Amino acid sequence: MPNPDIERLQQQLRAFAAERDWDQFHSPKNLSMALIAEAAELVEHFQWLTEAQSRALPDRKQAEVAQELADIFIYLLRIADKLDIDLLQAAQDKVRINAGKYPADSVRGSAKKYTEY
Amino acid sequence: MPNPDIERLQQQLRAFAAERDWDQFHSPKNLSMALIAEAAELVEHFQWLTEAQSRALPDRKQAEVAQELADIFIYLLRIADKLDIDLLQAAQDKVRINAGKYPADSVRGSAKKYTEY
Amino acid sequence: MPNPDIERLQQQLRAFAAERDWDQFHSPKNLSMALIAEAAELVEHFQWLTEAQSRALPDRKQAEVAQELADIFIYLLRIADKLDIDLLQAAQDKVRINAGKYPADSVRGSAKKYTEY
Amino acid sequence: MPNPDIERLQQQLRAFAAERDWDQFHSPKNLSMALIAEAAELVEHFQWLTEAQSRALPDRKQAEVAQELADIFIYLLRIADKLDIDLLQAAQDKVRINAGKYPADSVRGSAKKYTEY
Repeated sequence: MPNPDIERLQQQLRAFAAERDWDQFHSPKNLSMALIAEAAELVEHFQWLTEAQSRALPDRKQAEVAQELADIFIYLLRIADKLDIDLLQAAQDKVRINAGKYPADSVRGSAKKYTEY
Repeated sequence: MPNPDIERLQQQLRAFAAERDWDQFHSPKNLSMALIAEAAELVEHFQWLTEAQSRALPDRKQAEVAQELADIFIYLLRIADKLDIDLLQAAQDKVRINAGKYPADSVRGSAKKYTEY
Repeated sequence: MPNPDIERLQQQLRAFAAERDWDQFHSPKNLSMALIAEAAELVEHFQWLTEAQSRALPDRKQAEVAQELADIFIYLLRIADKLDIDLLQAAQDKVRINAGKYPADSVRGSAKKYTEY
Repeated sequence: MPNPDIERLQQQLRAFAAERDWDQFHSPKNLSMALIAEAAELVEHFQWLTEAQSRALPDRKQAEVAQELADIFIYLLRIADKLDIDLLQAAQDKVRINAGKYPADSVRGSAKKYTEY
């Protein structure tokens, strides 16, 4: 069952691209490049911070990070829309898969990749 | 106004990490690294495809890509949760900002960065 | 046998960081984040270009791309230096490994990942 | 003046691609995607480590990281070759530019971006 807020955002983004004649650029390939470029801007905010600093951002940095998260989300929604993937459903499915891959009792306190268990 | 589906997912992810004692690893800094690693797995699916091929994926690839989108979304929700950012609100704000930065009439059919206009 | 040009660059970068008291920030973890952020700036140059356009860049773009390659190379040299890895040797070893993984006769004209053969 | 070790590696990579008929895939655009995917594998090695742990890797991890650095270097050399950019020269130029952007006296002990000075 589609989520109305997400649907609405995707419709806005679709209209946004259509009005600007940008669909020609918005192949999933290109959008994946744009998404990782935004993800890197997020990484850049944190690269010289300690982990502790990254947990307690000053207000201005917090606002900038919120915008980076938004940019990533926007491209994520756009790719999902282009490929007709229900993002929320996919995430729910993945949470279930992860629960099977990482049983709480065997991985507690360890960050190893599941292939190492 | 928070979105119930997104809230529920974030609660599940919070419980998932807590049960595994993984919050010690889940600083925003580390989560940003995990997110970009997932974004790169998406990129990898498309790197040797033409744009046209990326628009029409075979079923198996389509399912794999759906999982990558889910992984990115999961880390995005997790960072937003850790930093107390309303992801949907941030995206709605950003869509509005972008409309100002890229007026349809002046950017039609061009993919230049807004700083170049 | 170390390469004198590469050694000299690494010494310059070492001095550069020391003079600025930046070694405290230059953990391999942080440097890997800085490297991927630079890699993303390269990706950004190409994200809305066709493949053909990316093969024939206008002069200004060509110069900008050269700077991005330099930035990536600088962080790569820096990480190698910090971890005491001989980058050139590692690359030569990897070329040999790849020749074994991708025998010319079986992969000709195909871009599948080696695990799929 | 070209560096003979780097030239030799680039020639090997050129022959490697030619024998496999892979030049059709090796547009700078695609190669930039492959490069960032390798950079992300490096990031993945460090994402759950502390900075201190990343400075002192166990032997096996050290060897794996050396291979990731090699992969990044290989794609970097390949892009430089395709675009006819002298990587070493570009890095030397960039080191000089950085010295101007970050004067030792004003940035000592601070990791702010140069635009913030």
